[in-house]
This record gives sequence, structure tokens and C-alpha cells, in this order.
Amino acid sequence: MKIPEGMKYDEHGLLTAVVQDHITGEVLMLAFMNAEALRLTLETRIVHYFSRSRQKLWKKGESSGHVQHVKEIRLDCDQDAVLIKIDQVGGACHDGYRSCFYRVIEGEGVLRVDGLKVFDPKQTYKS
Amino acid sequence: MKIPEGMKYDEHGLLTAVVQDHITGEVLMLAFMNAEALRLTLETRIVHYFSRSRQKLWKKGESSGHVQHVKEIRLDCDQDAVLIKIDQVGGACHDGYRSCFYRVIEGEGVLRVDGLKVFDPKQTYKS
Repeated sequence: MKIPEGMKYDEHGLLTAVVQDHITGEVLMLAFMNAEALRLTLETRIVHYFSRSRQKLWKKGESSGHVQHVKEIRLDCDQDAVLIKIDQVGGACHDGYRSCFYRVIEGEGVLRVDGLKVFDPKQTYKS
Repeated sequence: MKIPEGMKYDEHGLLTAVVQDHITGEVLMLAFMNAEALRLTLETRIVHYFSRSRQKLWKKGESSGHVQHVKEIRLDCDQDAVLIKIDQVGGACHDGYRSCFYRVIEGEGVLRVDGLKVFDPKQTYKS
């Protein structure tokens, strides 16, 4: 699989990636990809990102086992974002939830937790 | 509605917003919000963004009529992205499609159009 022509990377060489459960439609996370991460994702059908905090390529689930199997990749009109439909092993969020979007903004800035907790981060990420 | 504490805006003062149809779960678009856009979105229940190309506040649908009515706003674990579930009038994409993600990346970088076209941009955006 080749990368389509005309991709619009930002000033840091990154695209935004939205990741969605391919069956339920639940949005699981948002992260960033450089060209290498997109190429590896297309080739291996396992999602790879570029970690902005660690400034390195990041194969999702490499340490936790919570890998993301690609089912479909869509491109937006501006070609600066991709929507990836996946089969998620375990949970996408490092806080232990299935989705990173596990809190709802309610009145007066209050956050209500509303998400499925699927693993214990202390166990998964222990050194 | 107040903005929750601890939001993490980027170096341009922006958050990423993923917008999803509240019934079908279809991801419709991805855009950016500054604090003012988020405040207006929370208060009016109509989605507002910050346009990076025009460098100004942008009420979605102001010229096209394709407004987005807020049903729920979720926050991600890092507090630098929001997921907004909406009721979309017309289409989210300025190319005339219901969703901006109307193309699938296929083998060898080929893009296949797979999206519902709901309006004619030439008619909607005529001067």
C-alpha cells in the first residue's frame, strides 16, 4: 500500500488520526502520524503513530499488548487527517478505559465519567 | 456552562475537535477550537470553531445553513481534544458530502469515493 499523493502534513510533519471501533463506531482516541507511521500502518495493518511527547515512532500496544488492527482508512477533504476504523485489543486509553473520551462535560464545567474500564493501568504498565 | 479546568491548548491556543453524528456514529469532520469557540459551543449548543486558515472564530453553517446542534461533549484523557456528538443540518463537508471523510484509501494509494453527497457546493457557496 502506498501513501496517496497530496497529503498535507503540518509544520511538524504530522497528520491527525481519529480512531474508531469498526463495529460500534465508538471514537477511541486521537493521535498523530508522520509519513513513516502512516506508511507502516498501511503496510502492516497495525496502527503506528508518532508520539509528540516522546518524539518517536510509536507502535500502539507495543508494551501493553493493546494493538489496533486496521479495517479501513479514510482520508478527509483537506488531506490533513485520517479516520481509521479498527479492531481494538483491550483498551485504547492509557487510563484503562476502552476510549480516551471517557468523560462527559456537564453543567458548570463538571466532568462525569462515562466509559468502560477494561484494564488496570498499574498492572499493564508496571515496570 | 463553564469550560472544565485543566484544558491543554496547543502552542496556537487550540484544541482538536472530532465531530460525530449522535445517532449513526459517523465521524463527520475534524476541526479546531480556541477557548472562545469552546465557550460559545457550550453556551449556545451550536458548534463554533477557530478557523486556522482565516484565523478567526467560525460558527459552522453561518453562510451555508449547515449548522451543528450539540447533543453531548466529551473530553479526552489528555484534555487536549473534545468529541462532540451532534445533529448535523445538511452536510459537514464543504465538498458537499455528509462527512469530510468521504474517501477510502485503497491499494497503491488509490482513493475511492464512498460517501453520501447531500448538497452542491456551487449552489450553497455561490457569491
